[in-house]
Amino acid sequence: MSLDRLIEKITAMQNPTVVGLDPLLSYIPEHIKKAAWEQYGEGFDGAAHAVELFNREIIDAVCDIVPAVKPQCAYYELYGWQGVRALSRTIAYAKSKGMFVITDGKRNDIGSTMTAYADAHLGLTGLESEEQPAFDGDALTVNGYLGSDGVMPVINVCKQQDKGLFMLVKTSNPSSGELQDKQTADGIKIYELMGALCETWREALPGKYGYSGVGCVVGATYPAQLKELRGKLPHSFFLVPGYGAQGGGAKDVAGGFDQNGLGAVVNSSRAVLCAYQKRGADGEAFAECAREEALCMRDELMAEIGEIKIKV
Amino acid sequence: MSLDRLIEKITAMQNPTVVGLDPLLSYIPEHIKKAAWEQYGEGFDGAAHAVELFNREIIDAVCDIVPAVKPQCAYYELYGWQGVRALSRTIAYAKSKGMFVITDGKRNDIGSTMTAYADAHLGLTGLESEEQPAFDGDALTVNGYLGSDGVMPVINVCKQQDKGLFMLVKTSNPSSGELQDKQTADGIKIYELMGALCETWREALPGKYGYSGVGCVVGATYPAQLKELRGKLPHSFFLVPGYGAQGGGAKDVAGGFDQNGLGAVVNSSRAVLCAYQKRGADGEAFAECAREEALCMRDELMAEIGEIKIKV
Repeated sequence: MSLDRLIEKITAMQNPTVVGLDPLLSYIPEHIKKAAWEQYGEGFDGAAHAVELFNREIIDAVCDIVPAVKPQCAYYELYGWQGVRALSRTIAYAKSKGMFVITDGKRNDIGSTMTAYADAHLGLTGLESEEQPAFDGDALTVNGYLGSDGVMPVINVCKQQDKGLFMLVKTSNPSSGELQDKQTADGIKIYELMGALCETWREALPGKYGYSGVGCVVGATYPAQLKELRGKLPHSFFLVPGYGAQGGGAKDVAGGFDQNGLGAVVNSSRAVLCAYQKRGADGEAFAECAREEALCMRDELMAEIGEIKIKV
Repeated sequence: MSLDRLIEKITAMQNPTVVGLDPLLSYIPEHIKKAAWEQYGEGFDGAAHAVELFNREIIDAVCDIVPAVKPQCAYYELYGWQGVRALSRTIAYAKSKGMFVITDGKRNDIGSTMTAYADAHLGLTGLESEEQPAFDGDALTVNGYLGSDGVMPVINVCKQQDKGLFMLVKTSNPSSGELQDKQTADGIKIYELMGALCETWREALPGKYGYSGVGCVVGATYPAQLKELRGKLPHSFFLVPGYGAQGGGAKDVAGGFDQNGLGAVVNSSRAVLCAYQKRGADGEAFAECAREEALCMRDELMAEIGEIKIKV
């Protein structure tokens, strides 16, 4: 199933990272914004075109060294429906460049509505006389608070379309423990319960390399839980946010990988997108700086985990 | 704060209901789709225009008797960015007709990203030289799996913009208990814990009528829990899905109201939107049938709860 394609790209590039495309206007260099404002006006249309152009240049700069991108839906909805059009075009462009696209929407709802989300983001939409893909990402992040009937519709679409999903298990934010670390009367924590549910659901989406199509989101900011979950969830591939700007480093995420250097893909957004600002470089050099930062991150991680080997 | 405006509309109309705008193409009468296909083609653009026109006629038909609408984001994303444009226009149209708009997105993320969602759906987006509203709903549904730093950004925007939110507490779907009914080591269930967190957060958004701007989603399909939560969460206004097509009836939701007939707003989507299909009526009569169904629902509920009285 679909995370196999991600695993193959990670192995081929020897790079277990994903660039988060969170294109806040304040991250975008002045020359791109200026051109967009002049051509499309200073409203949502201009902002959305700036986002789109920025993303295209980032994708061009990293697509031969980074296996995946993760657009975060919030930063597109922020620019209205025009921003969501930029999301749609960004996904299509990244795929045309061979990248694996993880749509970070953390979607969740009851069964019938979740079917609509799954069709929208991973599957096909029924129109008058044919079915067409709407957003067509390769994987979607999902919040499992509603239990299995909010997850099975996504699994069903993944099965038909060779796609994957990542369930929120232990998130990277400071307050994630308020609910997720609560001990249940069964003696396990809520995030462990969610992880265990993922291992149940995985049977519907078996993979070639030991990891199912049902992945888990586990934050880099909780290295002990990351390592513990790697042991407890041997078939769940991890999407690891929180690297870089949120404080997680290479040593913190090392525990998320198995003995073959597989098992996780680590996200960095701001550190890559804003590398030119951090380095005090000119805005014109943003894509070059993003590439250098992505290479640094790859090298930092690979120094920790060693060669990535596919096991069949 | 914003739920006060909803409470005032409910009281003025003596109708504690909200019409869910879940405009699946199969719900839309042929004559609307045909006109849209002819003018905009049989792709996403045509579908989105059909959705928009359908919603406008539903809104026209109920805006003088129903206080609120609840567009469900999934059914707009299903039709691509063009569908999201229809969402944006639907929200604006409903507001122009005086309706209170609950954007049902069940959004959730870490703090910085949640700020983007809150700005997008309830607040203002920073552009080049000014701030503009993107989607501009009156309230947003939120999933609290990430704890308070995934909620506070929404509360902050609500405070500035006089808006509200509804946290998922006990959802209406069959499997909601898999996680939400788990007993914690502290002797309470997860949904009770989430409800208790809402009562904590409410202090940031006090309301004039005893209910804060932090509401809760509690399903009509779990009447015992709805009644129990009404008692335990005296300051939390409830958004109650699951009425009608999902199986909840007027007696099931009665326990969600207080002694003044306040405290909850009950959603119905399919039963109203598809009333013409259920009644075997012609597609041309869909708006009229929707109005009749909305009136039936109002009368069923009012027979259970009696007069709705604002207490100051």
